[in-house]
Amino acid sequence: VFHGTAPLLYTESLNHELQQWVERLRNGDPRSLARAISTVENGEADSSELLKCLFPHTGHARILGMTGAPGAGKSTLVDQLAKHYRKQNQTIGIIAVDPTSPYSGGAILGDRIRMQDHFADPGIYIRSMATRGSLGGLARTTADVTTVLDASGRDLIMIETVGVGQDEVDIVRLADITVVILVPGMGDDVQTIKAGIMEIADIFVINKCDREGAERVEREIRAMQSLAVRSDNWTPPIVKTVASEGQGIADLATTIGQYEAYLKKENLVLKRNVENWRERLVEMLRDAMLEKARAAMTEGEMGRYAAEIAEHKRDPYSLVEEIVGRVAGET
Amino acid sequence: VFHGTAPLLYTESLNHELQQWVERLRNGDPRSLARAISTVENGEADSSELLKCLFPHTGHARILGMTGAPGAGKSTLVDQLAKHYRKQNQTIGIIAVDPTSPYSGGAILGDRIRMQDHFADPGIYIRSMATRGSLGGLARTTADVTTVLDASGRDLIMIETVGVGQDEVDIVRLADITVVILVPGMGDDVQTIKAGIMEIADIFVINKCDREGAERVEREIRAMQSLAVRSDNWTPPIVKTVASEGQGIADLATTIGQYEAYLKKENLVLKRNVENWRERLVEMLRDAMLEKARAAMTEGEMGRYAAEIAEHKRDPYSLVEEIVGRVAGET
Repeated sequence: VFHGTAPLLYTESLNHELQQWVERLRNGDPRSLARAISTVENGEADSSELLKCLFPHTGHARILGMTGAPGAGKSTLVDQLAKHYRKQNQTIGIIAVDPTSPYSGGAILGDRIRMQDHFADPGIYIRSMATRGSLGGLARTTADVTTVLDASGRDLIMIETVGVGQDEVDIVRLADITVVILVPGMGDDVQTIKAGIMEIADIFVINKCDREGAERVEREIRAMQSLAVRSDNWTPPIVKTVASEGQGIADLATTIGQYEAYLKKENLVLKRNVENWRERLVEMLRDAMLEKARAAMTEGEMGRYAAEIAEHKRDPYSLVEEIVGRVAGET
Repeated sequence: VFHGTAPLLYTESLNHELQQWVERLRNGDPRSLARAISTVENGEADSSELLKCLFPHTGHARILGMTGAPGAGKSTLVDQLAKHYRKQNQTIGIIAVDPTSPYSGGAILGDRIRMQDHFADPGIYIRSMATRGSLGGLARTTADVTTVLDASGRDLIMIETVGVGQDEVDIVRLADITVVILVPGMGDDVQTIKAGIMEIADIFVINKCDREGAERVEREIRAMQSLAVRSDNWTPPIVKTVASEGQGIADLATTIGQYEAYLKKENLVLKRNVENWRERLVEMLRDAMLEKARAAMTEGEMGRYAAEIAEHKRDPYSLVEEIVGRVAGET
């Protein structure tokens, strides 16, 4: 009897602790929120249980993706937009995703400055994230942090990321609404961000529009748009801003509102969410299956295999089949 | 008896056919090569068996990765370098990886022009690849195509890709030697390619070095280098070229030769290969495990799950655990 009940009690007390944590987080306790974000960000042992508890409380927040080339003024625009929505008493979560390299420490510094700026206002929560290891990846971590912020009751979550790679496309895909920020005079303007990014824009912003070349950027966007029709028939509008001076911010908020109304009218929100979840499920499954395979391998096994393959003593294609078979209990 | 032997005979005749195909490919038959590349590129049913047969014949080719910002003149440089090595009677395979979007058809056009240029010379084989679906991904496909070209007996394989995202970093990681191509006057020069790319450069090329700003690019590279020491103690040299005029090409080939000699002297080739294979094995395993999970699901199951999650009727974290358990035969 003892063997049967002890683990149950243990699980129950763990669950109780978790429930309390979730409760505090939902009541707006900033420390519980910060701890939860760190837990999922670092993929700690209890992160999966935590996410399971949080998920039923999500779905309230609108998720806004903001992306653009480096130097396009994303953070300034996001900050201004956050201030705008704060005046309407909306609570904000900002996830600033920065695939930094060891060479650049600018992001962390910038984040500190931003934090100071908003520090007095608990209605704005900013979290910066850098590139994590390949397992799970940045897109998944961002998705999990979004789940936490959503469950915490934030009205609006802004995900801000540099639009240069597939990672960023995956991140932006989490958003209900995607804003792509361009800026004049960056050479081959439209070319400096990944082509796939242009295609997921619901709204374009030409920031620093007082600079020379703004019309050219606009023409380039229009030319691209003339080549393809979106399946939802929405033509992404172009909003011009000078974010550093707050110019065009109200305009951008209005345009975001218009697209939200359009999504609602056309009943597209659920459709988009289903599509997003289909992609995310595959990614989650891929990672979880890999973890399973890794757990079935002994310490150092992977390194030994890699050496054997590099020395051409073993072929990797047969090896992978063998491991998969082993995990699935076929051999 | 019949039940036992018929499948065996079938397998044997399949294997025989495969062996013949591999034989022809190794004897330099261009159609067998092209068919093999298409097979692995499209992930056709027999691609795994084919790769198993080809792998033991790989390891001869040197693999050169060439990457840089869009517009840096990669193809011109690759073509010039190919011509240079052809004069030394080396056979060349070029894999031009272009994560094109539906908007841009430039790559395909450019490829046709390049093909015409080299068409008379069977010693140069060019293959362009665009972005494939998320399963497997571009890096894996490129790796498989490299295996095919290597097994076909090419002396040198050049992988050419735009250096803007994680995909590209993964692709370049396949190479024994990585050349990063920069170009003056592209605004924030070093910023327009992904930071991670700079760090994997074994050799830098400043192409179009007759343009204004070449010195600035050089200074930026040197400044970056002063911040970090490579684990192999190699300081990536900077070669200046004007590829369109053939200027600096011989210089680049010499520098590549020097790095090859260094790798050999320091016994670094195997070490690097082991590291690469460790990464690739994880990726291959991840994909193979996902396929396994997908095979365990019925048609439409994923879409139904996605809908249930989007409607908040189901939590994705528990679901993924459940599917993994199902595949591993735990439930």
